[in-house]
Amino acid sequence: MEGPSPGLRFSLSIVFFSFVLIFVFLPSWYPPLDDPKQRPKQFFPPRKSPILEELPRTGKTKNCPSSETVHHPLDPLTTDEIIRVGSIVRSYPPFESSPPSIHSLTLHEPEKAEVVAWRKGDPLPPRRAFVLALSNGRTHELVVDLGSGRVAAHSVASGSGYPPLTMDELAAACEAPYTSAEFNESIRARGVAMSDVRCVPLSAGWYGRAVEETRRVIKVQCFDLEGTSNFYMRPLEGITITVDLDKREILEFVDSGRGIPVPKSAGTEYRYGSIEKGEEGRGTAAPPLKPISMEQPDGPSFVVENGHVVKWANWEFHLRADHRAGMVISRARVRDPDTGELRSVMYKGFASELFVPYMDPDEGWYFKTYMDAGEYGMGVTAMSLVPLNDCPRNAYYMDGIFAASDGTPYVESNMICLFERYAGDVSWRHSETPISGLEIRESRPKVTLVARMASSVGNYDYIFDWEFQTDGLIRIKVSLSGMLMVKGAPFENTKDVPEEYEMTGPLVSENVIGIVHDHYMTFHLDMDIDGSNNSFVDVHIEKEKTPPGSSPRKSYLKAKRRVARTEGDARIKLKLYDPSEFHVINPSRLSRVGNPSGYKVVPGGNGASLLDHDDPPQLRNAYTNNQIWVTPYNRSEQWAGGLLAYQSKGDDTLATWSERNRPIEDRDIVLWYTLGTHHVPCQEDFPVMPTVILSFDLKPVNFFDSNPILRAAPNFEKDLPVCKMTASS
Amino acid sequence: MEGPSPGLRFSLSIVFFSFVLIFVFLPSWYPPLDDPKQRPKQFFPPRKSPILEELPRTGKTKNCPSSETVHHPLDPLTTDEIIRVGSIVRSYPPFESSPPSIHSLTLHEPEKAEVVAWRKGDPLPPRRAFVLALSNGRTHELVVDLGSGRVAAHSVASGSGYPPLTMDELAAACEAPYTSAEFNESIRARGVAMSDVRCVPLSAGWYGRAVEETRRVIKVQCFDLEGTSNFYMRPLEGITITVDLDKREILEFVDSGRGIPVPKSAGTEYRYGSIEKGEEGRGTAAPPLKPISMEQPDGPSFVVENGHVVKWANWEFHLRADHRAGMVISRARVRDPDTGELRSVMYKGFASELFVPYMDPDEGWYFKTYMDAGEYGMGVTAMSLVPLNDCPRNAYYMDGIFAASDGTPYVESNMICLFERYAGDVSWRHSETPISGLEIRESRPKVTLVARMASSVGNYDYIFDWEFQTDGLIRIKVSLSGMLMVKGAPFENTKDVPEEYEMTGPLVSENVIGIVHDHYMTFHLDMDIDGSNNSFVDVHIEKEKTPPGSSPRKSYLKAKRRVARTEGDARIKLKLYDPSEFHVINPSRLSRVGNPSGYKVVPGGNGASLLDHDDPPQLRNAYTNNQIWVTPYNRSEQWAGGLLAYQSKGDDTLATWSERNRPIEDRDIVLWYTLGTHHVPCQEDFPVMPTVILSFDLKPVNFFDSNPILRAAPNFEKDLPVCKMTASS
Repeated sequence: MEGPSPGLRFSLSIVFFSFVLIFVFLPSWYPPLDDPKQRPKQFFPPRKSPILEELPRTGKTKNCPSSETVHHPLDPLTTDEIIRVGSIVRSYPPFESSPPSIHSLTLHEPEKAEVVAWRKGDPLPPRRAFVLALSNGRTHELVVDLGSGRVAAHSVASGSGYPPLTMDELAAACEAPYTSAEFNESIRARGVAMSDVRCVPLSAGWYGRAVEETRRVIKVQCFDLEGTSNFYMRPLEGITITVDLDKREILEFVDSGRGIPVPKSAGTEYRYGSIEKGEEGRGTAAPPLKPISMEQPDGPSFVVENGHVVKWANWEFHLRADHRAGMVISRARVRDPDTGELRSVMYKGFASELFVPYMDPDEGWYFKTYMDAGEYGMGVTAMSLVPLNDCPRNAYYMDGIFAASDGTPYVESNMICLFERYAGDVSWRHSETPISGLEIRESRPKVTLVARMASSVGNYDYIFDWEFQTDGLIRIKVSLSGMLMVKGAPFENTKDVPEEYEMTGPLVSENVIGIVHDHYMTFHLDMDIDGSNNSFVDVHIEKEKTPPGSSPRKSYLKAKRRVARTEGDARIKLKLYDPSEFHVINPSRLSRVGNPSGYKVVPGGNGASLLDHDDPPQLRNAYTNNQIWVTPYNRSEQWAGGLLAYQSKGDDTLATWSERNRPIEDRDIVLWYTLGTHHVPCQEDFPVMPTVILSFDLKPVNFFDSNPILRAAPNFEKDLPVCKMTASS
Repeated sequence: MEGPSPGLRFSLSIVFFSFVLIFVFLPSWYPPLDDPKQRPKQFFPPRKSPILEELPRTGKTKNCPSSETVHHPLDPLTTDEIIRVGSIVRSYPPFESSPPSIHSLTLHEPEKAEVVAWRKGDPLPPRRAFVLALSNGRTHELVVDLGSGRVAAHSVASGSGYPPLTMDELAAACEAPYTSAEFNESIRARGVAMSDVRCVPLSAGWYGRAVEETRRVIKVQCFDLEGTSNFYMRPLEGITITVDLDKREILEFVDSGRGIPVPKSAGTEYRYGSIEKGEEGRGTAAPPLKPISMEQPDGPSFVVENGHVVKWANWEFHLRADHRAGMVISRARVRDPDTGELRSVMYKGFASELFVPYMDPDEGWYFKTYMDAGEYGMGVTAMSLVPLNDCPRNAYYMDGIFAASDGTPYVESNMICLFERYAGDVSWRHSETPISGLEIRESRPKVTLVARMASSVGNYDYIFDWEFQTDGLIRIKVSLSGMLMVKGAPFENTKDVPEEYEMTGPLVSENVIGIVHDHYMTFHLDMDIDGSNNSFVDVHIEKEKTPPGSSPRKSYLKAKRRVARTEGDARIKLKLYDPSEFHVINPSRLSRVGNPSGYKVVPGGNGASLLDHDDPPQLRNAYTNNQIWVTPYNRSEQWAGGLLAYQSKGDDTLATWSERNRPIEDRDIVLWYTLGTHHVPCQEDFPVMPTVILSFDLKPVNFFDSNPILRAAPNFEKDLPVCKMTASS
């Protein structure tokens, strides 16, 4: 669709009204702050239009219809369904007096057994929505039945923590400082024009501070937009405002950075249009490269049935956008080349939580220990992808449909893209040595399918890829880019740093410190290898000594299989010198030669959290204490950091669930993998970071009876396209 | 060139005469073995022609001329130079009576200082060749001066070990068994037709066995070619023949596998032509994918000056083929976007050794602990690449020119390819959150340059990639494919394996065990960051505790820099829970804000050797005891496993050099990195292995003053090609 309908657009505008006006009109707001004329209540900007106008500039997109018809039990809620859920909730007796603030409104998935049993053409299971709503400071969990129009289940959360923040309360929080005389004074003292001030809302974490214990709070910090669009590189260091999210009033104001200059704007701009002017006086760029493009004159080889069921080569899976996980892969199945059978690999896979602790204990920094999925939402922060740049030509684009805090739906267009990749790699090859007398040169090109979305959680950009290979391998890839979160510093050169100054990161530009930080992406991988009854096997690779005189060799390695009985057996820290393979197998599905069908998780480069286990941020993110966990399937255990992560105290995380040490052998189990990295910034990360790519694989191991792509065809000249440049020929 | 010149072809035929005839005529050889008519001395097959004929079938290649003119001090020896060196050596007094066997004949690089000082247009330094020759069981190291036509230096090796094997002695070794009555009896006993027997030469390693101590030996094992071209999957298990390489006679014959059936041929074939017939009765393949191709209508953006100097985007480096390393990258330099200066990154980089220990102590397996570079040679075993399949369209192909054992040159055509890659990835991006009021969607496509070659060391295929990114990152990638080395077993299903049977790997097909093994690829990385005086810095990431009451945080991480003073400080084992970054810096080249210019080595997934340090194979490959080493530059220290690796005892390896604990601070240093993996085979690896990709990166860290690709242009529709299918339109 080309964007929201007029009626929808009206609701949309209401939603974004509160914060769009803040920024669009901020400049003219100050001074004075109290001029009622300045409060443009009549201002209704259609949020999406600027983006939609932008797209043709860089190429056309093929959106899927933000389907108003549901075809699959796992299809996300439609705009109509969201509207209906909103009205059901508002008219729900407990909320009749005052409508709650809706923090999450998504599909309540049918029971797993129902979904697995469902076949195309079958009637759909009842459509239900799961709602997290805040009312008078309490979190309500509702299951809304769309068929009956009733609230089917309702409970009030008792543990710690709150639901994800809403866009409009985030925007409102940024508005708070402007009413503060101290704030205005601090800005004046820095000689910054209020019209250039941009503030960002930073989740407060939880540290047991009295002022934060009894309420939802957020930290607001500000930057100088003067001379650049990259305000992140120009912090007003030392100013931190703690805001009450519900009362929207200032609880604490701190300015500890009066002496610290605002870093210069020169060299911070990154927009193509602006930088081309080269006003930063930088040297010449590298010679432009000649055009190169992944071309498919006959179009891609995948189809997307009814907007969500992806079929490509030997793969089939359900793909949908989610406001919190960003992207959810369900019912991933691969066809067996020997039997033609479509075999189950994974019931559900998604990014469950993203922990980003910064490594600076200062007043203005200690709390920066983000849980991006549970506090902000990876889907809510996923903007439209840029065609031809974020995704190649022939990419298929899928929208996200989410609910705003008043329950009205809005469309995040082109939020997910799907494309086929040929990167010049080889899927298998063999050349025969002349010594054998055989002249053999066999090689097969590797073509894969990528599902991608990119979240921009404030300064940072996370590109999530799920890449499917025809040999059965699934690569889960996270690419980090965007801006550093930097700290203003009183010196321009490392030689000027006084001995006693605590450097919590390198100087990456004049007056700019790139603070050391970590990233931990924890994935929920509900593996269902040929069905739900699976086991987790630690294939331990250990040294064996040969009996004296039995062999010229003294030692060799042996792979020993240990089946995990309970959760305790499956809390894994990766060790280079005590290695294992980690298999999820189906003990009742044996291959032709008797091996159990399985997949293994193959780590790539990784980093581990080193924070104290009793340090509040680590306590709340204790699920990063291991790289691998396995839990028995439990539909309520989806979010590694807890359903209610905001200001949570860590009483409902993967780590606490695992403490129950439940049996996991020959059952429906969920594999959890945490991909981590330490980021010590460097000058190259300024003013925007070259992408850093992290990944891990899910790889078939004795799942197929033999190489499933043995029969793949090579490339022949005649099968490849003929291309020319529009202009040049 | 289209192949060797007639004169050259004659010499070529001499070279391959001995072994080509063995296999082409083997069938008709037996029985009888002693029919003189059967010895076709007049048979002169032009070795390359079958390959050259093959190529057009899959697409044209653009070979570089196997240049007869030398343009750069590091250009490899030309065919003329090799011929000249051969004659100089043959007429060298010590060898006048009997010509030595030439095991290595390559460019003797000029002194590093000379090469660095050399500028295009300058006269070339004297051309010299380094020769390893065997004569009467002794290894001679010769430096031959082409200008004077003299042997400039000559020494006889005193330590353990021998030079790499030659193709013709390998072939001859395989001939030996056929004269053995025991061998013939063993083959008959298995009911295998002698015409179907194919034997392979396996390096013997060193185990202090008396029979092997005083001579060069090799192990020969054989396979059944009946019904398949994939004889590797049909071992004649238990037959091992130890052959004297010089006398070419059998020292030991063992047959311990009489009871073990030869695995069936069904399902082992992999050639496209044969498998399409589907005679293995396998199911249908996945639906064929529509054409997809990396297209560059205006051609690639790189140029190759005089056959070896590669210029692309901001990169410039020298690329050449080497018989032992396979591919050598020299003088890698990148242009600074701010100053336009071409800055030094790496003087020389190559795969120095490749250790592949198998994990089975049996008579027929214990010795399988290969050193593929030092025993066979990664270049000698690199066959012509398959256009459109090993490398994409628009790839540029480079030949390798090597010397045979009699000193005559031969051409390995299309041995290296060079291509630009666009894989749909993003080099940097940022989308601005609506909360900021800024509608920003900036994203840049990632285009890289790949230099590739593929070695087929018998059954295994290793694809080596050096990938250069415009952001300054170099990714070194090894892709493993080819065939497993399998063991015949007396059972068809795991349930039939008796308790007492020692399984040294999983059953991957009926009667076929995939033996557990490791791969260690050790890279020589002579980093020269902005010049040769560099230091190695361990940037240790460690936990700091906050003073009580000083912060709500209890802990945070801090990056502490420790400069390595001697080699001992730089023997690194990677540790997930004790992490560091590893930088090579130039302490005298400081950035605008005072940081030293540097590059860091960024490990990806890795594996470490767990064998006993006093186990002979580990002793010989002790350089794999750490993942990272740093040594002061020493032109004689190129090969991590020793210059003379064959049957060496480990007295000349990176580990022994490092024991000297030389100073490495602020000097010309060499970084060594070992990329390893444990391979527990699985059914999917049968009959040919889907590619497994391993890699690590060299990444700029404070080398550039800021993001060097900030000014890169995005893709616009108008800049991309218009394509159609030849057939379909």
